[in-house]
Amino acid sequence: MSQASFDTRAFRNALGTFTTGVTIITARGEDGEPVGITANSFNSVSMNPPMVLWSLAKSAHSLPTFKECQHWNVHVLSLDQEPLSNRFASRGEDKFAGLELDKGVTSAPLLQESTARFQCRTLFVHDGGDHLIFVGEVLTFDHSERPPLVFQGGQYAVTTRKPRETPRLTQSTPPPDCVYTEDLLGYLLGRAHFQLLHKLREAQPDTSLSDRLFYILSVLLIRDDQSLTELNTFIGYTGSPVTLEELGTLTQRGLIVSESDDNTCRYRLTADGRDVSLHQIAAAKAIEEELTERLGQSDAQALKLLLKRLITDSDPGLPDLWVSDNSAESTGVSL
Amino acid sequence: MSQASFDTRAFRNALGTFTTGVTIITARGEDGEPVGITANSFNSVSMNPPMVLWSLAKSAHSLPTFKECQHWNVHVLSLDQEPLSNRFASRGEDKFAGLELDKGVTSAPLLQESTARFQCRTLFVHDGGDHLIFVGEVLTFDHSERPPLVFQGGQYAVTTRKPRETPRLTQSTPPPDCVYTEDLLGYLLGRAHFQLLHKLREAQPDTSLSDRLFYILSVLLIRDDQSLTELNTFIGYTGSPVTLEELGTLTQRGLIVSESDDNTCRYRLTADGRDVSLHQIAAAKAIEEELTERLGQSDAQALKLLLKRLITDSDPGLPDLWVSDNSAESTGVSL
Repeated sequence: MSQASFDTRAFRNALGTFTTGVTIITARGEDGEPVGITANSFNSVSMNPPMVLWSLAKSAHSLPTFKECQHWNVHVLSLDQEPLSNRFASRGEDKFAGLELDKGVTSAPLLQESTARFQCRTLFVHDGGDHLIFVGEVLTFDHSERPPLVFQGGQYAVTTRKPRETPRLTQSTPPPDCVYTEDLLGYLLGRAHFQLLHKLREAQPDTSLSDRLFYILSVLLIRDDQSLTELNTFIGYTGSPVTLEELGTLTQRGLIVSESDDNTCRYRLTADGRDVSLHQIAAAKAIEEELTERLGQSDAQALKLLLKRLITDSDPGLPDLWVSDNSAESTGVSL
Repeated sequence: MSQASFDTRAFRNALGTFTTGVTIITARGEDGEPVGITANSFNSVSMNPPMVLWSLAKSAHSLPTFKECQHWNVHVLSLDQEPLSNRFASRGEDKFAGLELDKGVTSAPLLQESTARFQCRTLFVHDGGDHLIFVGEVLTFDHSERPPLVFQGGQYAVTTRKPRETPRLTQSTPPPDCVYTEDLLGYLLGRAHFQLLHKLREAQPDTSLSDRLFYILSVLLIRDDQSLTELNTFIGYTGSPVTLEELGTLTQRGLIVSESDDNTCRYRLTADGRDVSLHQIAAAKAIEEELTERLGQSDAQALKLLLKRLITDSDPGLPDLWVSDNSAESTGVSL
């Protein structure tokens, strides 16, 4: 650890390592005007009587309102409320524009769709340097199942619950010299990938198509009418390029048709091919839903986010499968 | 949202949705005895002057010490300090046993290996229902790069930073009826898996072995001397069982040898086969280290944790690759 002399940025960075949720705290002035700010300085104080606290900068525009009014609402924001957090963190615009409010037990504005809400009455206001510390009694509260938004190190974050015991794929303790353990990222990715495919095969026992042939159908589903060379710009990175034999198998089964133009053979899905592919994707989504339920929404979202970052960080330069040249032309998109 | 009447458990659950870091706060009594408690009620108050606060239950054993002493240290715990968090959260044992302390600017015990530390002097003690609110001036602080431990909903958690923009694998906005998007978990897992293998091939351009043959070598590296049937209990779930032809290729290259006993042919790694496999795993680890650096330690740890949970949740009942029957016998392990 490096001792830091007292500069504000270093202090802010050190404080930022303490993770927090994100709240919006609202009140209504005597003139009826609503105010609201984004704050992460919220915390619980007492269970009995129920009390919470938060701090407000003395420089805040809303300070007079919070000082004069006796009531305020704390909204613990959900993951989806990141835009609302940004809106209430900035000055100027009408923060409440377009927001539907619920009816609370006081006049303070009660926002919707947050993870938890605490409707409070001011008990004490303490001096806290360049901030005021508001301590309130909780009059009533409610909470939903929405996963909460998190803030850490100056950035928003998603949390992953840490079970009491880290899941172990083996009962053994590998010897210290064992180089290939269950902790190898490549192993975990491969096993997760193949287990999902295994579930997919189990869900569709009648389909005798291999994973490989499904990859090809899937690529054609997103981007139809491709040559062997084009298909391989999307599939080649798997290490097993598409072969003419595989395309022959799909043709024989009536799932794709080929068409020669100049010297190039191009492939398209048939109605049957589209149907088989759509069914497969529907089955994949059903499996994903089941696993998302087990993991929890927040954890499933964290997993996808991490996989996307890993993919971006390890991208060998794959072309964009979803951007069709035709659609870019026809909608007049130019970059 | 369901309005809750005022019961303590529901209130605790609602408060628990507000995510926090985890701190240990320490002080030393006039008798020289150190005290310390785990608290998540910490928060920043003021930048200038630098002030922080936290709350302590009036029922806490350490209350008299914290009230009488003027100094205390806040340690924002790192991910690795979960056991320390548990130790300081419970009563009875000597919490400081075996802990090395750093020298701080006051007499308060200064623990090691946390994410951030704030050495403080009491400014105010406010009443807060069943708690006291301690507001302190920060005398000095330091912080490390260790990822912090997080607490949410009564459980420990790991955070994943949420970049300002979610990484997108495509520049296009898929049409609303597009069923196969970059957001499909199965796609993300497959692409991440194959991209890592792609990097592995690039890192070892001289090795002309396919991914498949490496799987076989890897399984034999962990658990040598297997028949084709045994190998397939570990590899069959990939959808492509090991073939005699593949084993023939590995034998021809001098990477494995076979031995017949009764009617069963069993396979073992040669010294060369072991060498090739070890090199491959070393390369996989180097790639993992590079990607871990890009993702950040905490995010990489979250990814592995999530993959392990996904694997546990979707396990088709694979045998434990790392538990060798022989080693279990020889070490006398019985369950």
